Amino acid sequence: MEAYSIFRDLAILVIAAKFLGLVARKCKAPQVVGEILAGLLIGPGVLGLVSQSPFITQMAEIGVVLLMFSAGLGTNLKDLVKTGPVACLIAVCGVFVPLALGALFYFCYYGFSLLGSPSFYKGVFIGTIMTATSVSITVSALKEMGKLQTKVGQTILSAAIIDDIIGIMVLTFVIGLRDPAMKPLIVVVQSALFFVFSIVFGFISYKIFKWVDKRYPHTQRIPIAGLAYCFALSYIAERFFGIADITGAYFAGIILCNIEDSDYIQEKMDINSYMLFGPIFFASIGLKTDLGDMTLPLLWFSIGFVLVALLSKIIGCGIISRICHFNFSDSLKIGVGMMTRGEVALIVSQKGLSVGLVEPIYFTSVILLIIISSIATPILLKLLFKRDADIIAS
Amino acid sequence: MEAYSIFRDLAILVIAAKFLGLVARKCKAPQVVGEILAGLLIGPGVLGLVSQSPFITQMAEIGVVLLMFSAGLGTNLKDLVKTGPVACLIAVCGVFVPLALGALFYFCYYGFSLLGSPSFYKGVFIGTIMTATSVSITVSALKEMGKLQTKVGQTILSAAIIDDIIGIMVLTFVIGLRDPAMKPLIVVVQSALFFVFSIVFGFISYKIFKWVDKRYPHTQRIPIAGLAYCFALSYIAERFFGIADITGAYFAGIILCNIEDSDYIQEKMDINSYMLFGPIFFASIGLKTDLGDMTLPLLWFSIGFVLVALLSKIIGCGIISRICHFNFSDSLKIGVGMMTRGEVALIVSQKGLSVGLVEPIYFTSVILLIIISSIATPILLKLLFKRDADIIAS
Repeated sequence: MEAYSIFRDLAILVIAAKFLGLVARKCKAPQVVGEILAGLLIGPGVLGLVSQSPFITQMAEIGVVLLMFSAGLGTNLKDLVKTGPVACLIAVCGVFVPLALGALFYFCYYGFSLLGSPSFYKGVFIGTIMTATSVSITVSALKEMGKLQTKVGQTILSAAIIDDIIGIMVLTFVIGLRDPAMKPLIVVVQSALFFVFSIVFGFISYKIFKWVDKRYPHTQRIPIAGLAYCFALSYIAERFFGIADITGAYFAGIILCNIEDSDYIQEKMDINSYMLFGPIFFASIGLKTDLGDMTLPLLWFSIGFVLVALLSKIIGCGIISRICHFNFSDSLKIGVGMMTRGEVALIVSQKGLSVGLVEPIYFTSVILLIIISSIATPILLKLLFKRDADIIAS
Repeated sequence: MEAYSIFRDLAILVIAAKFLGLVARKCKAPQVVGEILAGLLIGPGVLGLVSQSPFITQMAEIGVVLLMFSAGLGTNLKDLVKTGPVACLIAVCGVFVPLALGALFYFCYYGFSLLGSPSFYKGVFIGTIMTATSVSITVSALKEMGKLQTKVGQTILSAAIIDDIIGIMVLTFVIGLRDPAMKPLIVVVQSALFFVFSIVFGFISYKIFKWVDKRYPHTQRIPIAGLAYCFALSYIAERFFGIADITGAYFAGIILCNIEDSDYIQEKMDINSYMLFGPIFFASIGLKTDLGDMTLPLLWFSIGFVLVALLSKIIGCGIISRICHFNFSDSLKIGVGMMTRGEVALIVSQKGLSVGLVEPIYFTSVILLIIISSIATPILLKLLFKRDADIIAS
């Protein structure tokens, strides 16, 4: 491939994503929904103008890392500490309710349809696929509505991050039942080490940033150093601690959220995001989808799978939020905000495939779950927040 | 390669490039020099921390395209038309003097060294490698000094663009002597068609942009549409007219340079550039270099090759500028500004290799030329402009 040919894909992606993003906004839907649909439209499933390439995958990865870094930068550290324990509880329920209901769904489906003999491990794995929330879409939708800094927004954000880590532990545990090479204990230790590392290294780098920022406020070097720091922590998290790169990026943002120029860094990041990386990330979700090999039994399974995955998160996270003294409306928002799934669900499926716990055919269901949840969550969140505003206004 | 591993390279690249860029600025040298040296330092030649990957190549390509788009956006169209004819003359001399002197050097070298029998075609090809100016380094240096909008800056910019096109015609002509598949006439026609296309399509898109800009001034959609337009024209130029993508990007900038919000677009582009794409582009020049296989005869050849390449541009462009009523100092600046070589020299060598007119061993000389000219030009330009300022001040 010649170097210049990337410009064709980039031009089409940026124009399609931003145009449909605008259309979505005109229809009172969040912009990200339009951007995901743009990917679906120009992707191999419909027009076939652009297909997923390693370059686009990598640009999309930068996009999601920038998004999480920016979310971290916008964090109010005091609020985060305050929401922490509740977020932990929500995350735990948000993992175990979908895990249980997902496995149950699998057994019921195979029990009723008599399609073959269900396997206990496979059932548990179907549940495992449903555990990990993908926070990026929700963050982006909340940010667009200006609700990321609310108590609900911060709770969702923290819970989704913790949820990711518990989800990976569950994955390791379930695979460990089959594959002795993966040890759940190691994952727990690694995650704990990453927290310790973040606190120690984070504190030192915070002091350095603070000092540099005081000497050279509002200079180019602050956001550039911040960007490099975000990339470095993303890499370190995944390479040395087995924690997702986006979690590393989010931590990098939190570490820097209290320096003088954190808003200034965030502003520069957001320009990078909305110009290029953001649209590419959201469109690439749609780009991955090709529903060519859909059969009727698979369609039924998929519908059930998607419904169980969405409802189990709403139920799991919603009920525990209600117990933790959120009102009904906010509990519902938290449940809905937690129901998006993303690349982690695909990664989990991939892992399951490699140890023989998932059939390739289920990938279609997982992709459908990602698409539907990515489109439904922002729309539902917007409706829920709007209803609240209407009630207050009336 | 896992998706997250790009963050390691990006973090190292950005930090090293910006740090050495700052050091260069402290030493009164232009920042780009530090960024190129950073690439050299972290690349396979010295520390071996980062090596050229397809992803970095593509990011660098975006970097140079953004740079040229921004240069186009900053153009004063009236000045460009005024400098046009003179720039044409300078470009013609800037192609033919290096072509002649390069071939002469080759014959002299082989005549004296008795290393083998020189071939006429090979000699002409060595000259051809020397023809194409790489404008990006010069543009960046001039921009940093705030001299891009001067008459000298605009003349260099236009001449370098025209020089590129003439250079490609010469390449096609020389290869056409050997390879009947490439027709010089087709290249001339294609270039002419690209100009016609740019004027017609450019005029229409200018009107559309102007209208949109009037309705939605200072909104996100203007720079985003501009970016997509720049990518589209880069692609179209190279794909359909065989013109370099950076020329397409420069034309896109010129087309949009007269809309209300051109400064606003430029500002957003420059943030993208200096944060990420710019440092990667400049560092990647250094990254390509590995001087491991240098021998003594090759070293002598390389020294001669680099000297002839640099001096022939200064002589060719400088003398014709002097004839066109530039004063001595400005003529020298134009000559120096035109002497940078870049990826086009490598592309030309690659083409020569594929038709058997260039030995692979000469690639080292070409890379040395790129590195040395990229470092020397900004430093010399800065000194020349400074001397002028000192003379005026005294």
